[in-house]
Amino acid sequence: MQPVSGSPVERVKAEQPATRLDLGRILNARQQISRVFRETPQFDCPAIGNALGCEFVIKLETANPIRCFKGRGAEVVASRLARGSGPKAAVCASAGNFGQALAYSGRARGVGVTVVASASANAAKIERIRQLGAAVELVDGDIEHARERAREIAARGDALLVEDSECLDTCEGAGTIGLELLDGSDRIDTILLALGGGALATGVGHVFKTLSPKTDVVCVQPRGAPAMAMSWRARSIVTTERTDTIADGVAGRFPIPAVLGDLLAVADHVPLVEEESIVAAMRMLYRRAGLVVEPSAALGLAAVLEDPSRYRGKRVVTVICGSNVLFDSFRTWMQE
Amino acid sequence: MQPVSGSPVERVKAEQPATRLDLGRILNARQQISRVFRETPQFDCPAIGNALGCEFVIKLETANPIRCFKGRGAEVVASRLARGSGPKAAVCASAGNFGQALAYSGRARGVGVTVVASASANAAKIERIRQLGAAVELVDGDIEHARERAREIAARGDALLVEDSECLDTCEGAGTIGLELLDGSDRIDTILLALGGGALATGVGHVFKTLSPKTDVVCVQPRGAPAMAMSWRARSIVTTERTDTIADGVAGRFPIPAVLGDLLAVADHVPLVEEESIVAAMRMLYRRAGLVVEPSAALGLAAVLEDPSRYRGKRVVTVICGSNVLFDSFRTWMQE
Repeated sequence: MQPVSGSPVERVKAEQPATRLDLGRILNARQQISRVFRETPQFDCPAIGNALGCEFVIKLETANPIRCFKGRGAEVVASRLARGSGPKAAVCASAGNFGQALAYSGRARGVGVTVVASASANAAKIERIRQLGAAVELVDGDIEHARERAREIAARGDALLVEDSECLDTCEGAGTIGLELLDGSDRIDTILLALGGGALATGVGHVFKTLSPKTDVVCVQPRGAPAMAMSWRARSIVTTERTDTIADGVAGRFPIPAVLGDLLAVADHVPLVEEESIVAAMRMLYRRAGLVVEPSAALGLAAVLEDPSRYRGKRVVTVICGSNVLFDSFRTWMQE
Repeated sequence: MQPVSGSPVERVKAEQPATRLDLGRILNARQQISRVFRETPQFDCPAIGNALGCEFVIKLETANPIRCFKGRGAEVVASRLARGSGPKAAVCASAGNFGQALAYSGRARGVGVTVVASASANAAKIERIRQLGAAVELVDGDIEHARERAREIAARGDALLVEDSECLDTCEGAGTIGLELLDGSDRIDTILLALGGGALATGVGHVFKTLSPKTDVVCVQPRGAPAMAMSWRARSIVTTERTDTIADGVAGRFPIPAVLGDLLAVADHVPLVEEESIVAAMRMLYRRAGLVVEPSAALGLAAVLEDPSRYRGKRVVTVICGSNVLFDSFRTWMQE
């Protein structure tokens, strides 16, 4: 270990968890991110907290032009590509939200973007990617097939592959959410994070384990798409044959080894939640907080609903990470 | 007129419209307002803009603990009371949102708050005022009867009367929304503001007519509660016998003369909209933007729906001023 020197950031660096991420870079990432994705609302929601017996704090990442948190990481990626000497083109696979984000940030910086998605991906997300001017290629199969195809396109050499969650920019961009949460002086006992590929969980987790190590970092996955959670428990990669969840934003089957390593260093608890709990949490956010959210964004509250005693009396923050939901699906889920 | 001196604020002061408000005080008001109510999201919503043929920008004032913009003004009021030598107690009449705001801000600063409301006021709003620790007195009749009762309570001398919209703090606090909108470099062709008592319209209107005088300031009232709009057209106070609108937040009958004077100096256009347009606008915000809003917050979009040619090709901002809606009412309005 390097000797601890005097500057706060260097002192902090010595105390960072053993991930690929770096607090200094996360602090710098803030400069790359458009104001429209930063300094998002964070506020107490007593209508939910009182029902659960905890202080329930919402960090809202949906009030921006792409209705999800992925803009933070995409801005860092696109800034780097725009500054660099390589091709001004990027290709990514996406269930839809990261693709929207990269399309938005690339367009603003003259970086051409190709998004590969599953033909069964959320149609609202795919349509929006097209509107943002990106090229879209749909493939049979699921997100893992899209990832494979994106790698093939990148191998041709005229576009850089951006693997969401593997690419450090995507994790460190997401990590800026953690900086904002800890800017407030209130203690945070628990942070609830949706767990898919891992960018949100490792990014925000890294910041908390560095600056607020006592905070319980809870990363939540649907039982219908449990590959990363199972890998975390096994401490080595576990893949699954299929996924079966409404939470399309987090439904991967092949966890990325480097991201698992990061997650092992920052997550304290990785519960799996049932589909019914996700729907119940979406309903609660709609009725009590007036929020329309996509299923992935309800994972944190679903975890509280399934295990309330863990959170009772605590100050609990959940990141509402996206609201890109098909209206008809949402209407169906809200019906009793 | 005073000679125009060198400092930007003084220079600007000379160019302010003839209202009771002052840009310097609005700039200072920002310091009094908790971060939780400031620097709110402002973002393009192409899903609505594309449907209307304009650039549609949302300024979202609902992602805070009281789900409306009224915290801005209440923070300024409560700060003044907490600093002053008078009684640390305030009384106000409210349809619910300003009462919540004053209860929240008063609690944070040791100022006792009494809210007088109509017995027929939105039950969700009244319940929340109680949860925030304020005393609530319900009166028969409507908001005008509540205002009368609040004046009686204040006349006893142990609580200061805070008349929403008449009290300059409430207007100037709301005006900080305008400063944030104009902080961005993009031009704004039109600003759409809900018009009730007038705090939002005169506060934001004053800032725009000072710093961006070419922006069309459009203040929208329901045809079922048209007193202030009729007064603006007549250039003198017009009262009505009754109101009949779902937009409970803006349903007054007795405009305040001083506020009308301010409105005459800043408003360019004051349309009245039908109830069906308000519901159609709420549906559009829900379906296309994923926003649950109260009827008052849909007035701006309702005005665009009724008169699309006025806004076509323009960059139009609407302030989503509240989301305190009874869930059952909202569900009913969303059904076709």
